[in-house]
Amino acid sequence: MPLSAPGGMRDHLPPDAALRASLTGRLLAAFETFGYERVTTPAFEYAEVIERGLEVDRRDVLRFVEPDTGEVALLRPDITPQIARIVATSLRDRPAPWRLCYSGTVLRRARGRARRNRQLAQAGVEHVGTASLEADVEVIRLAADSLRGVGLSRFRLELGQVRIGKSALAAVPDGLRHAAADALARKDGLDLERVLVSGRVLKRERKRLGALLELYGDGDEAIVRARRRFKDEASRAALDELAALYERLAALGLSDVLGVDLGELRGHAYYTGASFTLLAEGPGEPLGGGGRYDRLLERFGLAAPATGFGVDVENLWWALSAAGVGWSPPRPARIVALDVPDALIDALRSRGAHVATLPAPSVPRNVAPSVAALEFAQAWGYDALLFGADRLVRASDGVALPFGELANVDFEAWAFGGTSEPSATDE
Amino acid sequence: MPLSAPGGMRDHLPPDAALRASLTGRLLAAFETFGYERVTTPAFEYAEVIERGLEVDRRDVLRFVEPDTGEVALLRPDITPQIARIVATSLRDRPAPWRLCYSGTVLRRARGRARRNRQLAQAGVEHVGTASLEADVEVIRLAADSLRGVGLSRFRLELGQVRIGKSALAAVPDGLRHAAADALARKDGLDLERVLVSGRVLKRERKRLGALLELYGDGDEAIVRARRRFKDEASRAALDELAALYERLAALGLSDVLGVDLGELRGHAYYTGASFTLLAEGPGEPLGGGGRYDRLLERFGLAAPATGFGVDVENLWWALSAAGVGWSPPRPARIVALDVPDALIDALRSRGAHVATLPAPSVPRNVAPSVAALEFAQAWGYDALLFGADRLVRASDGVALPFGELANVDFEAWAFGGTSEPSATDE
Repeated sequence: MPLSAPGGMRDHLPPDAALRASLTGRLLAAFETFGYERVTTPAFEYAEVIERGLEVDRRDVLRFVEPDTGEVALLRPDITPQIARIVATSLRDRPAPWRLCYSGTVLRRARGRARRNRQLAQAGVEHVGTASLEADVEVIRLAADSLRGVGLSRFRLELGQVRIGKSALAAVPDGLRHAAADALARKDGLDLERVLVSGRVLKRERKRLGALLELYGDGDEAIVRARRRFKDEASRAALDELAALYERLAALGLSDVLGVDLGELRGHAYYTGASFTLLAEGPGEPLGGGGRYDRLLERFGLAAPATGFGVDVENLWWALSAAGVGWSPPRPARIVALDVPDALIDALRSRGAHVATLPAPSVPRNVAPSVAALEFAQAWGYDALLFGADRLVRASDGVALPFGELANVDFEAWAFGGTSEPSATDE
Repeated sequence: MPLSAPGGMRDHLPPDAALRASLTGRLLAAFETFGYERVTTPAFEYAEVIERGLEVDRRDVLRFVEPDTGEVALLRPDITPQIARIVATSLRDRPAPWRLCYSGTVLRRARGRARRNRQLAQAGVEHVGTASLEADVEVIRLAADSLRGVGLSRFRLELGQVRIGKSALAAVPDGLRHAAADALARKDGLDLERVLVSGRVLKRERKRLGALLELYGDGDEAIVRARRRFKDEASRAALDELAALYERLAALGLSDVLGVDLGELRGHAYYTGASFTLLAEGPGEPLGGGGRYDRLLERFGLAAPATGFGVDVENLWWALSAAGVGWSPPRPARIVALDVPDALIDALRSRGAHVATLPAPSVPRNVAPSVAALEFAQAWGYDALLFGADRLVRASDGVALPFGELANVDFEAWAFGGTSEPSATDE
């Protein structure tokens, strides 16, 4: 058996681990400026709790029997049911609205013939207790703000509204509903028709679902087209609501990224109103998404409307790379110290520099650092080597730097000796 | 079945969750200034990997069968074996020393008749590849620095050296060794004698272990006494090493907190040289500890010396509370906004304030905010309420504040309207 992490699980190594943590931290900081406060929840949860909140296919989760209680527990496939549990229990007596945010790893098993573990790093918010459009506007705007805040300027935000297609989808037999929603989301009309016919879905519903195949696009023109097609009262109300949401978001400066996709019904079992998906080049799947889920909290004993979203941090990382910006926030200076007086090391560290010592070199102080020391510095991403009390060398090429430069370095945001990196942030 | 987290698992709610995250972040930042770089590892691991690194009592861990492979996996009871796996595989080709740090949750099952889950939040460092005392000095000093860095000034750092008692402990039968080490650590001579006699341990080893009962105390005088008792060559070498370590740490300004306890052998199966324990009033168990473990990495296929330590973040939290400092770093201003113009909200947020909106009040702007709004602000820990474009009210008592004060607020470190909190940090 190979010495490895469990299948599908990932380690993050230096320097990626720190960068990913700072990306997640930046998302949470954005959430916090809107008043969302952090909660942390355990990595596993009783199955009973998760299954109240999600339709869980038992093959999609990792389960075990908790020995003390004999209860089945599972590695959480989603954090929202845990937040619902907290709001309905420990935080029940706080006044509405509940604005909570989280980050954490969830575990899902990939569908398909060979199910495999998939570890997803998520960060998100839940807004509980506000029924009005204000909450939808707030969370969708926050989702867009948080992507922009980490330097992603090119992304799409596709609005959906499950109430348009949900009743038609209800006419599809249980076992085929996921396949129908999938085909619809992929705009694969042939596959959709095949699924619907095999499920003996009546023509009226087939036509209704088929109409949704075309109801997507940039801007809000899909809403205009949908109004012509769906004229019943419930649809009209849902479209009015969606149009109002669209207008509010456009007024907040999001017109460039907004689109509409009424054929996105994959969250039909969960969402109850407006939903949205965040898309960008790179990962080949959404960066995240969310929407209104007004029926979840009541399953935990607290009838309350809710909306929220989650970002897949790994997909966001890919999207940033694909956009050519990457995630490279200002970082501290990193210096290797060889035979440097303690007081100087302390001074550098107290100014924020990361200083790693190497054993005192066996060569005299007045020659260059050894090849081994340079290799160490390069392999571990250090910027410079300091040796003795006053000799400074650039790590990338071993070229001597004037020692006096140290006095001018902004240690908390390395910009020195030509090694500074562009920041991915807007700041 | 109650709606709760699994037994022994904890949620962290606002504002604790954010404070705990910032405490952990501060520890990691301290580790990073010494060149320790973050790694993140999965919450579960193949049992085979963990068991290479630890003597695992299978009743002390939560296990499950990973369905894809049929392998037994377990929720990690410790992070060090994962770090060893990474160093010996993904990071094998990097030049020594490896300086890595981590934070994460581990799961252990409490011993005793009723085993129960215990969720521990840990942060720590591992230093691999340096055999010399320099690495021990560095990690022990870093442990002390990181506690001081979060505001804990009163703690004890007890040095141990398992090589003094390890050979005597080896004479104790397998099944009794833990009990003997426990009795010794508790300075319970009667219990120690009872365990040793029941295991038919010879008098020579009984006396040797018994002598360790007294070899503890402030400062280094226990080393002086130990030299009189343990005169064989191996013990002398071990004591010389410990004395040298003590002197180096004292020279770094740690005399006030240093002590020695040669009867601390509970890590005997793991540690190979100097070890240490961090103690403080409050939690009733160590804040953390570490030591040299030169034989671990070879079990992962890379013969390399190593040393490191871990801090139990929850115990540190308790110790900070018990010391009356708590953990209350500077925090952003938190403001509830009622019917405030968007541009003003944006400006406050862009300056770092946390601003939560409430639905526009149905009362005119020229009266005070509603009781409900004040209650919301108090329950969720907001500092002030802003309503309309220019009315500011203190959340704690509803007293009006001059709006002009907003211009002077340092939003990233709230100090305004008498609601500032003392910082627990040295900064």
